[in-house]
Amino acid sequence: MLVVMKNTASSDQIHAVVEVIKDMGYDARPIPGGQRTAIGIIGNDGGVDAGRVQGLEGVLEVIPVTHPYKQVSREWKADDTVVRLENGTVFGGSDVAIIAGPCAVESEAQIIGIAHDLKAMGATVLRGGAFKPRSSPYSFHGLGKEGLVLLAKARQETGLAVVTEALDPDGADLVAEYADIVQIGARNMQNYALLRRAGRTGKPVLLKRGMSATIEEFLLAAEYVLAEGNPNVILCERGVRSFDTHTRNVLDLAAIPVVKGLSHLPIIADPSHGTGLRAKVIPMGRAAVAAGADGLIIEVHPDPTRAMSDGAQSLYPEQFQELMDQIKVIARAIGRDIAEPLSAVAAG
Amino acid sequence: MLVVMKNTASSDQIHAVVEVIKDMGYDARPIPGGQRTAIGIIGNDGGVDAGRVQGLEGVLEVIPVTHPYKQVSREWKADDTVVRLENGTVFGGSDVAIIAGPCAVESEAQIIGIAHDLKAMGATVLRGGAFKPRSSPYSFHGLGKEGLVLLAKARQETGLAVVTEALDPDGADLVAEYADIVQIGARNMQNYALLRRAGRTGKPVLLKRGMSATIEEFLLAAEYVLAEGNPNVILCERGVRSFDTHTRNVLDLAAIPVVKGLSHLPIIADPSHGTGLRAKVIPMGRAAVAAGADGLIIEVHPDPTRAMSDGAQSLYPEQFQELMDQIKVIARAIGRDIAEPLSAVAAG
Amino acid sequence: MLVVMKNTASSDQIHAVVEVIKDMGYDARPIPGGQRTAIGIIGNDGGVDAGRVQGLEGVLEVIPVTHPYKQVSREWKADDTVVRLENGTVFGGSDVAIIAGPCAVESEAQIIGIAHDLKAMGATVLRGGAFKPRSSPYSFHGLGKEGLVLLAKARQETGLAVVTEALDPDGADLVAEYADIVQIGARNMQNYALLRRAGRTGKPVLLKRGMSATIEEFLLAAEYVLAEGNPNVILCERGVRSFDTHTRNVLDLAAIPVVKGLSHLPIIADPSHGTGLRAKVIPMGRAAVAAGADGLIIEVHPDPTRAMSDGAQSLYPEQFQELMDQIKVIARAIGRDIAEPLSAVAAG
Amino acid sequence: MLVVMKNTASSDQIHAVVEVIKDMGYDARPIPGGQRTAIGIIGNDGGVDAGRVQGLEGVLEVIPVTHPYKQVSREWKADDTVVRLENGTVFGGSDVAIIAGPCAVESEAQIIGIAHDLKAMGATVLRGGAFKPRSSPYSFHGLGKEGLVLLAKARQETGLAVVTEALDPDGADLVAEYADIVQIGARNMQNYALLRRAGRTGKPVLLKRGMSATIEEFLLAAEYVLAEGNPNVILCERGVRSFDTHTRNVLDLAAIPVVKGLSHLPIIADPSHGTGLRAKVIPMGRAAVAAGADGLIIEVHPDPTRAMSDGAQSLYPEQFQELMDQIKVIARAIGRDIAEPLSAVAAG
Repeated sequence: MLVVMKNTASSDQIHAVVEVIKDMGYDARPIPGGQRTAIGIIGNDGGVDAGRVQGLEGVLEVIPVTHPYKQVSREWKADDTVVRLENGTVFGGSDVAIIAGPCAVESEAQIIGIAHDLKAMGATVLRGGAFKPRSSPYSFHGLGKEGLVLLAKARQETGLAVVTEALDPDGADLVAEYADIVQIGARNMQNYALLRRAGRTGKPVLLKRGMSATIEEFLLAAEYVLAEGNPNVILCERGVRSFDTHTRNVLDLAAIPVVKGLSHLPIIADPSHGTGLRAKVIPMGRAAVAAGADGLIIEVHPDPTRAMSDGAQSLYPEQFQELMDQIKVIARAIGRDIAEPLSAVAAG
Repeated sequence: MLVVMKNTASSDQIHAVVEVIKDMGYDARPIPGGQRTAIGIIGNDGGVDAGRVQGLEGVLEVIPVTHPYKQVSREWKADDTVVRLENGTVFGGSDVAIIAGPCAVESEAQIIGIAHDLKAMGATVLRGGAFKPRSSPYSFHGLGKEGLVLLAKARQETGLAVVTEALDPDGADLVAEYADIVQIGARNMQNYALLRRAGRTGKPVLLKRGMSATIEEFLLAAEYVLAEGNPNVILCERGVRSFDTHTRNVLDLAAIPVVKGLSHLPIIADPSHGTGLRAKVIPMGRAAVAAGADGLIIEVHPDPTRAMSDGAQSLYPEQFQELMDQIKVIARAIGRDIAEPLSAVAAG
Repeated sequence: MLVVMKNTASSDQIHAVVEVIKDMGYDARPIPGGQRTAIGIIGNDGGVDAGRVQGLEGVLEVIPVTHPYKQVSREWKADDTVVRLENGTVFGGSDVAIIAGPCAVESEAQIIGIAHDLKAMGATVLRGGAFKPRSSPYSFHGLGKEGLVLLAKARQETGLAVVTEALDPDGADLVAEYADIVQIGARNMQNYALLRRAGRTGKPVLLKRGMSATIEEFLLAAEYVLAEGNPNVILCERGVRSFDTHTRNVLDLAAIPVVKGLSHLPIIADPSHGTGLRAKVIPMGRAAVAAGADGLIIEVHPDPTRAMSDGAQSLYPEQFQELMDQIKVIARAIGRDIAEPLSAVAAG
Repeated sequence: MLVVMKNTASSDQIHAVVEVIKDMGYDARPIPGGQRTAIGIIGNDGGVDAGRVQGLEGVLEVIPVTHPYKQVSREWKADDTVVRLENGTVFGGSDVAIIAGPCAVESEAQIIGIAHDLKAMGATVLRGGAFKPRSSPYSFHGLGKEGLVLLAKARQETGLAVVTEALDPDGADLVAEYADIVQIGARNMQNYALLRRAGRTGKPVLLKRGMSATIEEFLLAAEYVLAEGNPNVILCERGVRSFDTHTRNVLDLAAIPVVKGLSHLPIIADPSHGTGLRAKVIPMGRAAVAAGADGLIIEVHPDPTRAMSDGAQSLYPEQFQELMDQIKVIARAIGRDIAEPLSAVAAG
């Protein structure tokens, strides 16, 4: 942390800042400059609370230098984290893994049918909401536990791994019983009780970036899971809030190389929620792979015009096939491959 | 909902849209125009899912006309909701109510001491975090249940009502046992499990606007509480995320008159979190009252340089007194008063 | 400037950074820390280009410490700048000055009529667009030079000073011939050719904050005017772009105390453009005065439903009167007054 | 335009709105609904000013339905606009065209040297700033006219076309004398005097999206050029302002398919300014091509650590080569090619 003093700061004011820093248990080193003095804080571990210093007399601003996250940092662990699922899917290796499925589990016929289609087209993980967070209390909120049972059945029939969202701490335990990956949605990125419980399930956690989360807040949310002893976090860029209304969010693909520089965790992209519009999902799915994403999560529905939620952003199955064909070529341009389809691996 | 067709849309495409709308259970009325046809959806109650229509051939865009919230709307209930606490404090009446206290409950001496001071200066509700949501898992997270006990003790000694934050569903029940108002923080504005449980406690709920929540999402979050049969929601503008770094957030004071136009619920402002800087709290607290806020929630600490969290934005007690003096004059400019201090009411 | 090295940075990499800094003409001081080394740059004047250092091997990030603006800074000049107009109006003194008028000059009858009304209600400066920047090339773009002539006539009849916008360098000279203040609009905040020419006219410049300008960019834009030897800049907060659509912009009132801390220049607020909605102009005008604004600029039209532009945000004359009555009380709450009406000063 | 009335609106209020619309020269059609009445405006051409209606009694909101741009719209002209330069480079055809060069022209040796390198690696257009808009008046502002002369010389020696920025109306004429494409920078996207003059030069115009411009404002800015009779506009996505500080801007790649849906104009991407960081330029350049960009504009400097501006985001020549190799494969994945290098075409 660097404390920048006003150019009018008196030596008494500088001294007072040094004293407060020492009282906080750190060492302080004044750095006189041409225009002003700055004071470096030595020996801290990133957890210094700027608040005690920020309001002191003569202080112009306090600049954090050390980042407050630890275990998620590439400085803490240099090698890429590789998250492996039981069906052989890998996130964070050289292959790009594909998650696909409908926004919500609607019926047995729907989820089993689309699971077979998606497997045939090369997805290795099935998505589908059983518990749906909706802005309105009056919208469809998912089939609940019945949805989990249907997802497990789809896994048994196809060999696809399953990811689905948990909305509260008890739900995290329940989801972990049925799914291979526990998803934390964007609205809950800073729901710490949920993050902690999801971490304690021991299952891999798919953590979506919050609507307006900075990269630092995103990594700190992942830190909550790692702090529970669970290293298997898959980050997911899904668009951030911005001022234009043509797309639902702005898919911040530069977050992918930025996160890969700062952290060892795998990061995938969600162009379905990132754009909210079917016609933009394919180009942005391609772009995410080109930007270096370790995977994609794509909404596909057998009949989007009849989807009970998010129909506007769900691909038709044939569009998903087109996307798969294109990203195979794109992955190769950067020395990667799309993960081998499961057919080669044989399912249960 | 209004479906705007492309100017190249064929009559078959227009017909197909009409059929989908009818299949959804509504009536559709095509409105031919000079350049294009639009199709109005008649008979809906605000809950129409645009998704099914948005991706259809020939559709340019889908424009929501009816808002998806109901019970929070001023069209549903024209008169202002007035939230009354046991100690006589009123939110949403003609008086402006003042909540004040430290960011976190740190010790008995701290909370009891400041409570007496604040009461003497005219606050009628005491704030203080027992459970603190922090971006980092390694920061101070509050005293927990012990903090609730100390808040209750401060209430008993001073007569101040108490508001404190709940972080998860079980915590909402616990907070409701000790506090007069259950606070839902900005990070949890769309934590629906928490909103529902807080609603079911029957206690008034102080709902903070999410970091990048639109007004509509803010009102929909309140709708979750009202949908549980609890009409006593106090909304709180606390700043939204923006691109400048001089203040922690941008305090969106225009949200106050906007919300008052759309909803009957009271709305207060939090200039402490809204700016993150002590020196900006007084001017923005004044501005919030001038903009028509029904109350303020202000962080005050007996010794901000030793605060365990948010010290930079906490006022010194004498600064709080200055703010109180100024807003008394400002409230009168718009025909309001600052709520009578409790001394006049007599405490337990 | 502080260069923060990765914790894995080698001493060769640290040495290379030091060499580049020396090559740029500055002194470099490595500051070893617990986790990493930081390198302070000594002797710079705020104009260091971070670019040369940012991409070097081993560099984690480059943090600017000195701000790049100079003459606008309160560190450069501690006392408030006071801008005085010929008719006695003062911006930046203890009084709050009020600018009012229609969005655009539409006719002689309109501008002369409203000028008399506004003077009677206490405004001392008349606004009115002669050259209107419009998003669409097909919208009404103002009466041009004829509008300037009418404004000058209104000044002659009423004694009100006149402010109007210039859109290009030649236009700045023309506006300066007729008006007391040359306005630079939000869209042109970084139109440097225009800023320079406006500066050279010698007339006071009203500089509006750009749609998404940081405070630093805002002050740097003002620096362009001061760099031409013109100290008379009046800053104007007029709302920044954000994600909610209920108001046109988010009026960032905290910018007022922030700017007053960093700069000696006067700052006023424009609640008309800041909200875009008539019903929000009065509360936000009050809030701006409460936040410490040195003035307001308000759109008032004799018949807003017939205004040729921005009718939705123009006040009716009687609403302007209501605002004036309220802000008189509010100004007093912070030891200020609304500027004396001109009637007391006598007009031409 | 659709006028949505409050559910409490009286029939007199509805009638008054209809009258105002008729007074504006349009036809009004009330659409009674279950909850409220909406009023459609028939016969308008997109230029209706919502202002006159928005503030009327009983009006809840006014929703624009027709977009205000015309000639840039794909509804106005269905086929893609193809911009052809004299040296054979095409923007908007099936090939992806590559513009590259340093941020600023610094010397003859620098610009001629890098031009030869870039041509050899496959760029067909040379960029280089002669007039540099800088946030600070004290930064390097380019070589001015001398820079233009050097660019023309580089063109003569290599056959590369030349693009460079104009900062004011007179500058547009000057740039058009020397360059093949006149660039309008992000800060000047709504500098209408400049847009008009650039349009009148007859040269193709490269128009960068403003820092916080909506897609609609971006297209309206292009409309200013087309309205001068110049159809040759190349749009450029270069990142928009957001809240995270890890990258300079958020490169909004979804704007590419969105613009291609709404407009016939070609659109390219600028990952150099879009990220501000060398290490992110290659992944985001790849992503832009994958998203469907018609070209890229890339900063390349022979020695970025000595660049006079924007060194941090400039690629080393060998990095540019790597990008070219990768995007060749990516373009093929979507049935496109990178434009043939000029060597095949023979230069002057």
